[in-house]
Amino acid sequence: MKIAVLGTGMVGRAVADRLSTLGHDVAIGTRGVEQTLARTEPDWLGNVPFAQWQQTHPAMPLVSFADAGAHGEVVVNATQGAASLAAIEATGAANLAGKVLLDAALPLDISEGMPPLLSVVNTDSLGEQIQRAFPEARVVKSLNTMLADVMVDPGRIPGHHNVFVAGEDAEAKETVKSLLREIGWPDDAILDLGGIRGTRATEMYSALLFSVSAALGTYDFNVAIVRK
Amino acid sequence: MKIAVLGTGMVGRAVADRLSTLGHDVAIGTRGVEQTLARTEPDWLGNVPFAQWQQTHPAMPLVSFADAGAHGEVVVNATQGAASLAAIEATGAANLAGKVLLDAALPLDISEGMPPLLSVVNTDSLGEQIQRAFPEARVVKSLNTMLADVMVDPGRIPGHHNVFVAGEDAEAKETVKSLLREIGWPDDAILDLGGIRGTRATEMYSALLFSVSAALGTYDFNVAIVRK
Repeated sequence: MKIAVLGTGMVGRAVADRLSTLGHDVAIGTRGVEQTLARTEPDWLGNVPFAQWQQTHPAMPLVSFADAGAHGEVVVNATQGAASLAAIEATGAANLAGKVLLDAALPLDISEGMPPLLSVVNTDSLGEQIQRAFPEARVVKSLNTMLADVMVDPGRIPGHHNVFVAGEDAEAKETVKSLLREIGWPDDAILDLGGIRGTRATEMYSALLFSVSAALGTYDFNVAIVRK
Repeated sequence: MKIAVLGTGMVGRAVADRLSTLGHDVAIGTRGVEQTLARTEPDWLGNVPFAQWQQTHPAMPLVSFADAGAHGEVVVNATQGAASLAAIEATGAANLAGKVLLDAALPLDISEGMPPLLSVVNTDSLGEQIQRAFPEARVVKSLNTMLADVMVDPGRIPGHHNVFVAGEDAEAKETVKSLLREIGWPDDAILDLGGIRGTRATEMYSALLFSVSAALGTYDFNVAIVRK
């Protein structure tokens, strides 16, 4: 499948690499290709510059958001939440029309340090904002409740734990669930929270994600819903 | 131990009954004793009127918030979040000075129906509001991430799942952890999220709690943090 991954950070790299390894035709989208490749410093999370990462992951072209949008049959939003609406705008509403937009972003506000606040919360969510702004895209939120390493390698966490999906379009959710299964998520680990409003729940969960990570001293965990 | 439970709803009844059964000297506090006993209709959640419940749970006196505050060495806030600050005010700051205040409430706003919104979120929390308003109380938030039946009977959910604690006072948290162990929570299920700001995380998690409950059609589940 032709897949566009928007974003060159930790999440974008992890998802793009995994989907490419699985045999998908992945292009990575960025705001400015030359600027992204010109960076020589690690990012704020300590990730190596993209050009350095690309040397060991040469299969995927780095292209503009618009070219990524033209390429992908499925588009993955792996940009920072604060940049997501602009990135998707640059990707192009026409490029997104009718396509599955897998939104993996969190609307984090780190202006007051860690743990982050959310820039949209409670009465709205980034997932809802994206769906409203791009009504012809079939937005499915998923993967936004865990570390990138866990997103693409669920087996690194032992036993039962969950990934959530939420969105209005049932067929689009099936496409995303199918990709999740390819990545390694067991079918019974995929918990469908219903419509796009469910994105509030998984975005707001991030407060617990960051709080637990501070308590445990690691992000290498995931959440499980355990039933009676 | 002398324990006051503020609130006569589902959570108050469950916690009071469990702690009383364990041998604690429990008083249940309410705004108006006569009004509470005079109710003949089920509450909005379908719980039987308190007077009817009391017939099968006669060991515990129903008293005013102030009398409950005078009684308890530990005070449990099991009121609705919207009523919590007023209930604790009526309990009396002097009654609470130096005491452990186990806050189990959620600041739910159901004015727009279900799922609830939060009346305080993201940059503040009910737990923080209570600690600020009653600086001499030693507030520990816990139990607010699950159905009342699970709070007091963790064994009804199989395997590993968690209860969280957050608060500024380490000794107060030890008192709460000790009560949680008495109730049946394994020591390794009790996850300490640090200071009072951690209450934002568990209150905001409630969005996922309600979303998952709608998806599963039950509240009979709990959350587990699963480590690598």
